[in-house]
Amino acid sequence: MSTKPLYITMHANDNVAIVVNDGGLPAGTVFPNGLTLKERVPQGHKIALCDLEEGQPIIRYNVTIGYATRAILQGSWIEESLVRMPPARELTNLPISTNIAASAAPLEGYTFEGFRNADGTVGTRNILAISTTVQCVSGVVEHAVKRIKEELLPKYLHVDDVIGLEHTYGCGVAIDAPGAEIPIKTLRNISMNPNFGGQAMVVSLGCEKLQPSRMFPKGSIPIQSADDNGDVRVVCLQDQEHIGFNAMIASIMQTAEEQLIVLDKRRRETCPASELTVGVQCGGSDAFSGVTANPAVGFASDLLVRAGATVMFSEVTEVRDGIDQLTSRAINADVAEAMIREMAWYDNYLTKGGVDRSANTTPGNKKGGLANIVEKAMGSIVKSGSSPIVGVLSPGDKVKQKGLIYAATPASDFICGTLQLAAGMNLHIFTTGRGTPYGLAAVPVIKVATRDDLARRWHDLMDINAGRIASGTATIEDVGWEMFHFMLDVASGRKKTWAEQWKLHNALTLFNPAPVT
Amino acid sequence: MSTKPLYITMHANDNVAIVVNDGGLPAGTVFPNGLTLKERVPQGHKIALCDLEEGQPIIRYNVTIGYATRAILQGSWIEESLVRMPPARELTNLPISTNIAASAAPLEGYTFEGFRNADGTVGTRNILAISTTVQCVSGVVEHAVKRIKEELLPKYLHVDDVIGLEHTYGCGVAIDAPGAEIPIKTLRNISMNPNFGGQAMVVSLGCEKLQPSRMFPKGSIPIQSADDNGDVRVVCLQDQEHIGFNAMIASIMQTAEEQLIVLDKRRRETCPASELTVGVQCGGSDAFSGVTANPAVGFASDLLVRAGATVMFSEVTEVRDGIDQLTSRAINADVAEAMIREMAWYDNYLTKGGVDRSANTTPGNKKGGLANIVEKAMGSIVKSGSSPIVGVLSPGDKVKQKGLIYAATPASDFICGTLQLAAGMNLHIFTTGRGTPYGLAAVPVIKVATRDDLARRWHDLMDINAGRIASGTATIEDVGWEMFHFMLDVASGRKKTWAEQWKLHNALTLFNPAPVT
Ligand SMILES: [Ca+2]
Ligand SMILES: [Ca+2]
Ligand SMILES: [Ca+2]
Ligand SMILES: [Ca+2]
Ligand SMILES: [Ca+2]
Repeated sequence: MSTKPLYITMHANDNVAIVVNDGGLPAGTVFPNGLTLKERVPQGHKIALCDLEEGQPIIRYNVTIGYATRAILQGSWIEESLVRMPPARELTNLPISTNIAASAAPLEGYTFEGFRNADGTVGTRNILAISTTVQCVSGVVEHAVKRIKEELLPKYLHVDDVIGLEHTYGCGVAIDAPGAEIPIKTLRNISMNPNFGGQAMVVSLGCEKLQPSRMFPKGSIPIQSADDNGDVRVVCLQDQEHIGFNAMIASIMQTAEEQLIVLDKRRRETCPASELTVGVQCGGSDAFSGVTANPAVGFASDLLVRAGATVMFSEVTEVRDGIDQLTSRAINADVAEAMIREMAWYDNYLTKGGVDRSANTTPGNKKGGLANIVEKAMGSIVKSGSSPIVGVLSPGDKVKQKGLIYAATPASDFICGTLQLAAGMNLHIFTTGRGTPYGLAAVPVIKVATRDDLARRWHDLMDINAGRIASGTATIEDVGWEMFHFMLDVASGRKKTWAEQWKLHNALTLFNPAPVT
Repeated sequence: MSTKPLYITMHANDNVAIVVNDGGLPAGTVFPNGLTLKERVPQGHKIALCDLEEGQPIIRYNVTIGYATRAILQGSWIEESLVRMPPARELTNLPISTNIAASAAPLEGYTFEGFRNADGTVGTRNILAISTTVQCVSGVVEHAVKRIKEELLPKYLHVDDVIGLEHTYGCGVAIDAPGAEIPIKTLRNISMNPNFGGQAMVVSLGCEKLQPSRMFPKGSIPIQSADDNGDVRVVCLQDQEHIGFNAMIASIMQTAEEQLIVLDKRRRETCPASELTVGVQCGGSDAFSGVTANPAVGFASDLLVRAGATVMFSEVTEVRDGIDQLTSRAINADVAEAMIREMAWYDNYLTKGGVDRSANTTPGNKKGGLANIVEKAMGSIVKSGSSPIVGVLSPGDKVKQKGLIYAATPASDFICGTLQLAAGMNLHIFTTGRGTPYGLAAVPVIKVATRDDLARRWHDLMDINAGRIASGTATIEDVGWEMFHFMLDVASGRKKTWAEQWKLHNALTLFNPAPVT
């Protein structure tokens, strides 16, 4: 990183900028243009580019991120208490489809090696997943998965992994409450993630609220029975035939082996990049997230869309303050309305819980220089690039379109990742400023560092260093292209992510807005 | 089980009884007293002992469990649709302390071999627990625990196990919302469960909302730092000193080994039974739960209270319809008011989510013969025995009293178990009718079957068969005493539960009534 004093402004209209230098800059620092710091400013934190009066808008990303709580002199540190958060944008009179980017030239000829599925999706890994209807069976499934990995998986060389899809839903929950369809849809759709090859099997207890027939109702995925050659195989622990624990394990292992035999016949084949379904999100953000990693993801997202792929961005509370940007990029009024509906639903969900969108920000965000959720959202939203938004998913829905999709989810890394898995993602891009060892068992997670320092320290956890953008050793375009190529390599299994190498993964976390009982 | 036709009545005032026989009984069956079945009645389901008019109260456990939706003839099957659920008892004008049992003779001389802790509690196992502030670190902790088990644990022969206390809280949650203190308190208090020997260590990410200083605020448990020899050791993954993944793992393993050295010095010593803190709950209930297993637990609970131990019963929605029984057993008005306050809080929580207590019952409950939550609650509440209720805990609180305690929790097996762990339980009794392979990593879970059939099929998962009470081969007293002796054996480590033998355990599940972000 440069030792020359350096700040970054995001837009010509901004009256604040952030300090780039590692460790921040001391009082008295003079920038090349003559601007002088009145006090020490930590790395990633904001400095006033001009004198600001009390109540004057503080502008970053050409957006009012707040109002000065008192007069602030040029060259001062604008720490969080000096920024009064503006109210959330009303969800009425929004600009609709007023800013639709001219369609960019298609990007042709890019391919990856993937596993084609009968339903038209393409997997980037070949995994046997064992779904569960209810947490009661988790211990048994964990035991069975261990034995399958030891005793069966080594015989099936073309299968990458066996995973148990354990979760904390299924019973002891208000399953008929408003919102309960979200976790149920999520579990159903995850079982059909492209990386599972259409070989769905589920372990059920027997007396749970979330019966297999409710997880897979008529018209969704047919359940296999004596007289129906359906797609979902069910092992029910309470079945009369299970005499003793080992009978349960044997039953799960037998069904698993039948699935492994089918999965083992699959081979990678060359697929156009349009078969990628990429979920993007960020976690542990800092002020560099919106300057380095997220703009590079936005650039890569535009490349993916030009290549005909599907890109999903999410995290309601991190786009809420930029809803006008999103509705103006909506391809049509239906898409804009769907986004507004998702924002309104979440506003109401938070209000019922006694909070608002400002509950999103963390101590780490603030330490990293983000004054409030408005500033954080402006940096988060740039992950979506500049393509028109062509579709919207409610939490738990499956994506059925190409192009840029807004998949509404909480910002929680694990809940967002779980919902993007249910939506059908086959590759995950995750940016982080403070650093998190995040991983998922079901799809590769490519982690992008926002700062050189993090990329250096976590050299074997971060897959891509976007910090070079701040230090001036790479452009947004450079890192965006690198990411795009790395995605094709990882999707093809030619390269592994660090999370895969260390087998680091987090548990599925369902979004259940309904009460437990 | 007897092949003679048999039904069981719970109270002389009941106008219904349940069929005991395996597989139910056919139409035309004549009972020894002459009562004749008008139709087939499944096992565990209710028969009318007399003609009932439309609207007439249906009485079981001497309680109105509902009203007949139409006229019902003597000997008919009262299936669920014939029972109209009564409204919940208002929380006003409740009888207070009107039914306090005369104090039973103290039960002296019973002991177990336990691990005494500095804070006065006693462990039944000697476990190194690694707490976590946030889900972000779960993958790393899981990796570290695996290595600790392989490389360190074999050196420390007096330590039983190493477990990671992973969960899905800590960030991406509205941490200042009403109710957010529940999961935070829970995590804090679990780290001090008696089975962890007071050796608390926590792995933190660094930027999470639930900072270690918030999990362990001033006045709770002091955190160890350069200038404070506190009780909680913290490993923070984002610390500058961690260069690369293996440095994080090494750091966790080093701290873990320091804890193992301390834990390894502990030895079991003879403790009075009064040092037991037993959490009781049920899951996968059927109509026999309230006839066999739960009354036996109630009897054992009275024995424990007579021996000076602490017994906690829980599950708000399963006692809500018996609140008048509980307030009348409250030792004083403060205790009664605290119970009423917990019921009101939960009523409100469910109402905000658009449901009520009736959301509790499952398809398995109904198949097992329980018409509604009122009938289920009457069978559930008997786990509390007949002792006076001397204290009340809010969710997440730690118990500090001997005697019978009402620890308010959801009925969800995993959430209830997690909250009872936080409350300080060192032994868990769990009754089940439909069957569940439930287990916890932190304390032994003794599972009690309500029916012979389940005990036979799940012979290596169920620790005690209370089904013998229905078939007449044992009394409630017999099974209660058997349970009491088995508890002392398990607490002493002389016997292991089936869940321990198979190493079956479910994940911690936090009760977070607040929104995610
Ligand atoms: Ca199939
Ligand atoms: Ca984010
Ligand atoms: Ca996130
Ligand atoms: Ca229960
Ligand atoms: Ca329960």
